[in-house]
Amino acid sequence: MKELEDYIIQRGTVKEGDVLKVDAFLNHQCDVGLFDRMGEEWARLFAGKRVDKILTIEASGIGIACVTARHFGSVPVVFAKKYQSINLDGEQYCTTIHSYTKQTDFHVIVGKRFLTPGEHVIIIDDFLANGCALNGLIEICEAAGVVIEGIGIAIEKGFQNGGRELRERGYDLQSLAIVESMDAATGAIEFR
Amino acid sequence: MKELEDYIIQRGTVKEGDVLKVDAFLNHQCDVGLFDRMGEEWARLFAGKRVDKILTIEASGIGIACVTARHFGSVPVVFAKKYQSINLDGEQYCTTIHSYTKQTDFHVIVGKRFLTPGEHVIIIDDFLANGCALNGLIEICEAAGVVIEGIGIAIEKGFQNGGRELRERGYDLQSLAIVESMDAATGAIEFR
Repeated sequence: MKELEDYIIQRGTVKEGDVLKVDAFLNHQCDVGLFDRMGEEWARLFAGKRVDKILTIEASGIGIACVTARHFGSVPVVFAKKYQSINLDGEQYCTTIHSYTKQTDFHVIVGKRFLTPGEHVIIIDDFLANGCALNGLIEICEAAGVVIEGIGIAIEKGFQNGGRELRERGYDLQSLAIVESMDAATGAIEFR
Repeated sequence: MKELEDYIIQRGTVKEGDVLKVDAFLNHQCDVGLFDRMGEEWARLFAGKRVDKILTIEASGIGIACVTARHFGSVPVVFAKKYQSINLDGEQYCTTIHSYTKQTDFHVIVGKRFLTPGEHVIIIDDFLANGCALNGLIEICEAAGVVIEGIGIAIEKGFQNGGRELRERGYDLQSLAIVESMDAATGAIEFR
């Protein structure tokens, strides 16, 4: 998506350690007009698919998913919640996700009431790097018996393995911008 | 807002300890169509005001704020981020918020770049009880020198002090549903 690539070039910053800072428009300050056009683009890419629900993960995915939902008939958005400790009361699907950024594990839960077996969902999130968060959401979908119709990502780090692995497993992964390489020293960013 | 009150009656649950569970439509599963009509209502209530930006707090405020922003000319949404420890690198406004629900303090930050002195903002959040979270956001606004044009809350617990105190301080507080009383034993909910 050319517009998102332009935003990344103009308003993103490359930091040491393969960090791409896009907090000016994507995950701290939110450019809602951009989110709307991203939703429109995913609606085009996933056209013809049955989408009963959108699944995302707090916090940065929520705004993108909620604005996107309007382009899928305002289906409900469910966001997985992060917890320090797993709540094992049996009413939640739980999984553990490793965060490379924070070098720690965290737990996410989704209330069982909010994913019904046989439902068709798309998963939306802001970033895809090694795929840990997405794999956690996929695990939850499998436990719930819902059908994953597609995965919509704003920015994929194409130089990490998450995207390639998900495509090899057969998922319809639609990343709106795929960063092929970036350089903290020069600030240069190249897209696939 | 009659529709929100109906949602609360039909899909909310009252739990012991003054807990109102509305995760079926507000803060775990998100009814995006409802959010859209809530945004429309706030646009009516805050009509004529200058709104450059919407400020909210992760996680439950984000979806509501992003969908609402469309009714204010798609202004940017900034969400305050929760942190375990305060990051004192000088680039963030920080404040500490006490959570009565979790009986713990947490820290929230907003990047200084995202609140410009002289900007006019409205604050949006899902719940108002004792007002701790809102007071934290107000502190950040004061530190940033932005003008708070109004505060939009989905559900106010009218039997707790937050709302009364904010109105006494002169804020234009618009809660779309004010719960006057609720009873975990019978499930009864009364609105102001």
